[in-house]
Amino acid sequence: MKPEISRHRPYPAADVPGWDFETDIVVIGFGAAGACAAIEAAQAGAAVMLFERNSGSGGASALSGGEIYIGGGTDAQKAAGFDDTPQAMAAYLKLAGGPCADEAKCDLYAAGALDHYAWLKAQGVPYRGNYLPGKVIEPVDDSTLIWSGSEAAAPFCDQAEPAPRGHVIQHQGWGGGRPLVDILEARAREHGVDVVVDARAVALVREGERIVGAVMRIDNTNRFVRAHKGVVLATGGFVMNEDMRRRYCPETFRIADPIGDKDDGSGIELGVGAGGDAIHMEQFFTTCPWTIPESHAKGVFVNTAGQRFINEDCYHGRVSRTAIDQPGGKVYLLLDSAHFDQPPDFARVSIAGTGATWEEVEAELELPAGTLSATMAFYNAHAREGRDLLFGKRAPILTPLDQAPFVALELNFQSSYFSFFTLGGLRTSVHGEVLDRAGQPIAGLYAAGRCTSGLPAWGHGYSSGLSLADSTFFGRRAGRNAAA
Amino acid sequence: MKPEISRHRPYPAADVPGWDFETDIVVIGFGAAGACAAIEAAQAGAAVMLFERNSGSGGASALSGGEIYIGGGTDAQKAAGFDDTPQAMAAYLKLAGGPCADEAKCDLYAAGALDHYAWLKAQGVPYRGNYLPGKVIEPVDDSTLIWSGSEAAAPFCDQAEPAPRGHVIQHQGWGGGRPLVDILEARAREHGVDVVVDARAVALVREGERIVGAVMRIDNTNRFVRAHKGVVLATGGFVMNEDMRRRYCPETFRIADPIGDKDDGSGIELGVGAGGDAIHMEQFFTTCPWTIPESHAKGVFVNTAGQRFINEDCYHGRVSRTAIDQPGGKVYLLLDSAHFDQPPDFARVSIAGTGATWEEVEAELELPAGTLSATMAFYNAHAREGRDLLFGKRAPILTPLDQAPFVALELNFQSSYFSFFTLGGLRTSVHGEVLDRAGQPIAGLYAAGRCTSGLPAWGHGYSSGLSLADSTFFGRRAGRNAAA
Repeated sequence: MKPEISRHRPYPAADVPGWDFETDIVVIGFGAAGACAAIEAAQAGAAVMLFERNSGSGGASALSGGEIYIGGGTDAQKAAGFDDTPQAMAAYLKLAGGPCADEAKCDLYAAGALDHYAWLKAQGVPYRGNYLPGKVIEPVDDSTLIWSGSEAAAPFCDQAEPAPRGHVIQHQGWGGGRPLVDILEARAREHGVDVVVDARAVALVREGERIVGAVMRIDNTNRFVRAHKGVVLATGGFVMNEDMRRRYCPETFRIADPIGDKDDGSGIELGVGAGGDAIHMEQFFTTCPWTIPESHAKGVFVNTAGQRFINEDCYHGRVSRTAIDQPGGKVYLLLDSAHFDQPPDFARVSIAGTGATWEEVEAELELPAGTLSATMAFYNAHAREGRDLLFGKRAPILTPLDQAPFVALELNFQSSYFSFFTLGGLRTSVHGEVLDRAGQPIAGLYAAGRCTSGLPAWGHGYSSGLSLADSTFFGRRAGRNAAA
Repeated sequence: MKPEISRHRPYPAADVPGWDFETDIVVIGFGAAGACAAIEAAQAGAAVMLFERNSGSGGASALSGGEIYIGGGTDAQKAAGFDDTPQAMAAYLKLAGGPCADEAKCDLYAAGALDHYAWLKAQGVPYRGNYLPGKVIEPVDDSTLIWSGSEAAAPFCDQAEPAPRGHVIQHQGWGGGRPLVDILEARAREHGVDVVVDARAVALVREGERIVGAVMRIDNTNRFVRAHKGVVLATGGFVMNEDMRRRYCPETFRIADPIGDKDDGSGIELGVGAGGDAIHMEQFFTTCPWTIPESHAKGVFVNTAGQRFINEDCYHGRVSRTAIDQPGGKVYLLLDSAHFDQPPDFARVSIAGTGATWEEVEAELELPAGTLSATMAFYNAHAREGRDLLFGKRAPILTPLDQAPFVALELNFQSSYFSFFTLGGLRTSVHGEVLDRAGQPIAGLYAAGRCTSGLPAWGHGYSSGLSLADSTFFGRRAGRNAAA
């Protein structure tokens, strides 16, 4: 009897009836991580087959803004007058990784970010090179450099010299992830990477201790693919797999809007089935995109006890992730008439209370008298003096909210648009090797992107561009090392 | 070349040079879970060998208070006038499991708790049968029934009919876990269980798809043990394994005092290496034992922003676990002269501020004026009316703190005594089978106790006695089903 074909254990090479394909490197998943792995492996002289379960490239990368977290002194940073250093960037990356930080990856990325930026440009990724000040999720014009994290906000700015590090591909409007992947796809094809779409990985193949291939489901048939040098998993996270979320990341059920592509965790399961270690699986990113405008950073977030809980000037993902920690299933964003804009429809944020005083807003929200109103009296009194004694928010974002009428916007975790995706995954070395539970590399098996735990390891420390930085940089290393 | 002997993958039976021991059931770990598994397996007619890496029984169970969470209408509950039901207990258990609740285990335990209590008595575990009111960690006399969780406190009391359910073995003083394990050990030996101490599990043995034994390290030699019917892992959690904590439960590094025995996660690693699934690995219990006296539940906890964060009347583990979520590395317990007792030395709690008014305390703590003092003014005003509008604390525990002088005790996460242990582990069925990552039982492999994720799955919902309830009840089921 033949062994079962399963994601959960490698198929024995001895039982392979015959190899349908043979190549040096098999890459599974055609988002940015898989594309970068394929390019580097091909450029190193390896024959590469790249399998994608969708009908074309993209993955979650193509749904993103195409922004990559890069620093240490880029042309765009210098032109705008920012003296960023690899040391400052490493310090920030470690803060951003918090309790889950992989210090070796932080150091290596900080040291290599400038070279990586040059490589991206060499692939044809265009950057206009200019700086767009202010708070933006993504530029709506073709600007390059934006603040994309919490660098300039307390407590981060006190522990790492701040600089903007979000580098956005030159394009018009939102959604730079699609053109970014298109460019990487073109390079991969130029290098002779053999792309097979509509092909889903259903098993790895092992010979002795080594991963030597994969079983791909193509046209409803299992195809055995021999990888003489290695297999690179680049299949994304598990945000679309409710069963895995229940077991490993149940806090995500507090919120309603997973974002991703086919991110069903299959690469994580393939890797763990081969003996790999999955770490920090409880971590997730979340954001309500309504929290980004500068006018709203000037607002005040309170929980259902009327208490502040964050420096609102932090990155919107940090603000949102901390909001989700609050009891009561919702938080409020308080604004005065000087700082109110109508929420966009997609944010599904409702006006829960208004008033000529904060006491009236408090009453309309049915919060106990003396909670929200006391919070705002305290906040305003100190804001007038340029101080936030609780969370270190600073002028000019710190400003009194005293222009009536006042408004409370309700951000409900279930019904407002809090998008989220998972951050935990396979433990990998800085070389992209999948590590087993004893910390040793699994021969022939590599991984990159959100099927791994990488630079964006901690939900409270996410910054825009960290996941693409991790995916592209460590994807390249995985491909290069697999081909070596 | 022989395969490596490793916790991380089962050893092939075909490579076993010869069986040093043969039995029906191998139990690994001689705490309460292992003892109960062994007793049931032996009583079902199986030959049982029980291996323990220490020189005698005990494990973390013997370090505990010997309190077991039991309800649904025990003799002690009825004698004290509590009309508890399995339904109310199941509802509480699900709340206690929070986002990690295993509803099937909650329902099964609630339905079976009375029978389990009778079984414990039949083994010889003595219960005086009386009720000890008030808030106690453990009775210092030989009393039976105590409140051991958050049943009577909001929000739990609003969602599940409260009753005390901590049932403590009859003995004098603290530390009922040792006599509890001694009694279970005596029963196991009476049933002919073959106990081998100073024996450490270094691998499982697999034949085809089935776990058929283990490799035990005894006298510096690997011994191969054949288990004709099954292996039961009962090795405890991973609180003593810093490397595992770093990968799976890094928040525990915020606190300094692991409690446990040899809880190095080896059973979890053995199970995962055999294809098992480890779930909710980020969960941990913590408590500062200083938070238990009733006088202190009458106190108020604030974080470093001067904000309350919990109904202080909840179980001390819930209060402490929520405290650890607060930023700033410490929290304060505020008491007035009517409710102050000197902290015990072991709690390492310091007096951080005193004053004739709350404003003076606030100033001495160097908190911004109008934070702590405003919190206390708000709290006291409503406490005088018998209301806690933020967290639902109720009289008589809810009482104004207005008798000068006032005091703030500092509970520092690193230097105060916050003990902790891990709660995540192998995913098991209600039958004690270790489930693989596809949710299917691994033939021949069972587990119980803190190497599994069980009734005490969620750190914020822990109640005293839940871990021993889980260990003894599901340990019995694991042994019985392995022997079947």
